Amino acid sequence: MKKLYFLFLFFFIGVFSQENEDQKIIKQIFDASMTSSSTYEMLDYLSNEIGPRLSGSLGAERAVEWAKKELSKMEFDKVWLQDLMVPKWVRGPKEFALIETQPGITFNVDVCALGGSVATPSVGIKSKVIEVKSFDELKVLGKDKIEGKIVFFNRPMQPNLVSTFQAYGKAVDQRVNGAAEAVKYGAIGVIVRSLNLRLDDYPHTGTMSYGNLPQSKRIPAAAISTNAAEKLSKLLKINPNLKFLLRQQCKTYPDVKSFNVIAEIKGSEFPDEIILVGGHLDSWDIGDGSHDDGAGIVQSMDVLNILNQIGYEFKRTLRVVLFMNEENGLRGAKRYSEISKKNKLNHIFALESDAGGFSPRGFSFTTNEKNFNKILSWKYLFEPYLIHSFEIGGSGADIALLENDKNVLAGLRPDSQRYFDYHHASIDKFDAINKRELELGAFSMASLIYLIDKYGITK
Amino acid sequence: MKKLYFLFLFFFIGVFSQENEDQKIIKQIFDASMTSSSTYEMLDYLSNEIGPRLSGSLGAERAVEWAKKELSKMEFDKVWLQDLMVPKWVRGPKEFALIETQPGITFNVDVCALGGSVATPSVGIKSKVIEVKSFDELKVLGKDKIEGKIVFFNRPMQPNLVSTFQAYGKAVDQRVNGAAEAVKYGAIGVIVRSLNLRLDDYPHTGTMSYGNLPQSKRIPAAAISTNAAEKLSKLLKINPNLKFLLRQQCKTYPDVKSFNVIAEIKGSEFPDEIILVGGHLDSWDIGDGSHDDGAGIVQSMDVLNILNQIGYEFKRTLRVVLFMNEENGLRGAKRYSEISKKNKLNHIFALESDAGGFSPRGFSFTTNEKNFNKILSWKYLFEPYLIHSFEIGGSGADIALLENDKNVLAGLRPDSQRYFDYHHASIDKFDAINKRELELGAFSMASLIYLIDKYGITK
Repeated sequence: MKKLYFLFLFFFIGVFSQENEDQKIIKQIFDASMTSSSTYEMLDYLSNEIGPRLSGSLGAERAVEWAKKELSKMEFDKVWLQDLMVPKWVRGPKEFALIETQPGITFNVDVCALGGSVATPSVGIKSKVIEVKSFDELKVLGKDKIEGKIVFFNRPMQPNLVSTFQAYGKAVDQRVNGAAEAVKYGAIGVIVRSLNLRLDDYPHTGTMSYGNLPQSKRIPAAAISTNAAEKLSKLLKINPNLKFLLRQQCKTYPDVKSFNVIAEIKGSEFPDEIILVGGHLDSWDIGDGSHDDGAGIVQSMDVLNILNQIGYEFKRTLRVVLFMNEENGLRGAKRYSEISKKNKLNHIFALESDAGGFSPRGFSFTTNEKNFNKILSWKYLFEPYLIHSFEIGGSGADIALLENDKNVLAGLRPDSQRYFDYHHASIDKFDAINKRELELGAFSMASLIYLIDKYGITK
Repeated sequence: MKKLYFLFLFFFIGVFSQENEDQKIIKQIFDASMTSSSTYEMLDYLSNEIGPRLSGSLGAERAVEWAKKELSKMEFDKVWLQDLMVPKWVRGPKEFALIETQPGITFNVDVCALGGSVATPSVGIKSKVIEVKSFDELKVLGKDKIEGKIVFFNRPMQPNLVSTFQAYGKAVDQRVNGAAEAVKYGAIGVIVRSLNLRLDDYPHTGTMSYGNLPQSKRIPAAAISTNAAEKLSKLLKINPNLKFLLRQQCKTYPDVKSFNVIAEIKGSEFPDEIILVGGHLDSWDIGDGSHDDGAGIVQSMDVLNILNQIGYEFKRTLRVVLFMNEENGLRGAKRYSEISKKNKLNHIFALESDAGGFSPRGFSFTTNEKNFNKILSWKYLFEPYLIHSFEIGGSGADIALLENDKNVLAGLRPDSQRYFDYHHASIDKFDAINKRELELGAFSMASLIYLIDKYGITK
């Protein structure tokens, strides 16, 4: 036979005429997700009407109210708030920074305070800069070369890794621990190259930690855009004595009360087996957190709607959990797992979407071999929708604490190429979301939840 | 064993220590593509310095010159131009359209002439509108209901197909043949809902055909943005007698001379076996054609550079062919295949990239079973880079004419979800391109070409 066209045609006709029940139902879930879901509309509201929602902010409070109200309109048996205390860090007025190559010759650069950083004095700090790529380099340079200076961490994310999350993992130490490391050698501040693979003008914030450092020893830490980092590095090669001025007025307040938002519908056959789906309701304070993690929130909220549309009834208990404070404390995750343990809740499955609203490529799992093999046997159901990647390798920060010997934790894995262009930056906004990609994510999640609910996990 | 982590760790160590030569070389191709290729830089020039390049335009002429010059800087043995005649259609001043619900009450709407359309009279055409979803509906309505009116084709692209190209294929008849069909019933013009799955304000142009209709019978045809299409449809339900004004001043000139751009490096062992890689150099006149098909052009141009960087030497002959006039005539493809047939050239493989510069998901092939099975045996080499989809089902418009019993034609298949947001619209611009996604496409192409060159195809 010359061409495979006809062979394939017959193959497909064959498949469709013999389509099994799961294939049929997953096609129905697909149709519902792509034609009559509320996923995009909900994100429009969350992003454009509520916007940024850093823990402890008015935005976070409004997001909690909105989520509770939205979930209450749906077919859940019960919607409630789980209280907890969260950190409250406030950025204050826009940060300011410049490079002074000679007195009077200055270049403004784009920076933003890292989450949790202390302020500079109100006039700012101004000093020489020492550029490093690693903590080891700090050790080699020693106090002699570092004391009194601003340390500039400028190790780029590695471009030759197909997963940008892996590249992030290899670079994030600079942001998280840079200040605590640099201060050991007498640095007076740190600026960190934004964790973005692209060259652009957006500084990317994110959490940082001083460890056990007393308040009086803490030094200000800011992110600098990748373009500005490149520029600073070039200028330092010409003039190692240039000065850098940084001014930021961020502040940490006492912890305040906030909430996880939880919705539940009891299963008809195995009500004690809980299937959890969720993301985190808080976001950073710049941008509106559409990808991180507005997408995951609305996808999780919409799973029940989508499955209701096709008339599916849960055998097991479905819980939607919108966690508070993933970004700078994980307090919501800790609180939820504590209470779950106290109440001896049996989470057989938990799925988090917290990797952006891009085209889904698959799922990543934390589980035992038996369960993983069972899940792999469902992979063929996803492949017609270009969901190909089922891997062992983690789930999500908010659900990781629910891990035990028997259960399955999973994370949605969207295409990661563009994620860090937006992550924790002012451009993580609704216009960076594609409706179809967002809906394909919700479809993938609803389909996996349908299969877990129908077949359970291995005992 | 409780968790699979360690199992997988050992598995990966095992794989890497026993990595075969192809795995090693493909990793090198990946590294070169992601860290030191010129793909993005070339597209920056083509998009931002040359810009739109519709066949017969100054932009197309400049693109030909630029491509020849760029290719001449590379390690090809020979770079040449293949002349041909192309249509020359010019849009003229920006189109204008409005909906008049009552005399004096009007709404401006976003439209653009379809490529190849005739102009309206200089004052425009103004008439009642009849909305249809299909050519069958035209038949049912008949001359009675249609004569003297503007036909409004408003069948949206189907959202519940995972491939947006499939959705495009099911809707494009309205754009291509709408005018020729509507004129049979006395329509005086057609407006066609833009072929875009998203609701926005950008009209999408594209080629249309009057078939054999004499010049005097041709009626103007324009695309209307999806938002405007929705609005017009709603207003028509309220007031079926509303009027639509369309004014466009486009014009077809006599054919002009243009060129395919070809570069070749002879193979060391099988110089008569040609491996072709290409895309189309022309683009529509609105936007700068970064996705369609600037991406495919620079990816194709960069394949040799990337393989040179890792020191690979071709056994077979590599040809880069940048086709002219894919958008409104396919004249370059026809000319190239004619000359190839005349010279009895043996194209064992041809690969086209003409589906956007998004994250590559795989390839689609036209070939016989033996070759397809051979290619499938290489799939494991691509999977670590999230290239999962190897399917039978077409290649590219420019290379399709090279098909024969023995050879392999292939098309790069990037993620298609966002493609039609940009396709043939003013927003198909360089800022819609992600550097990594573009480079991943070039990597995928260079890797497949490496394998074809090394192993050949079945005889």
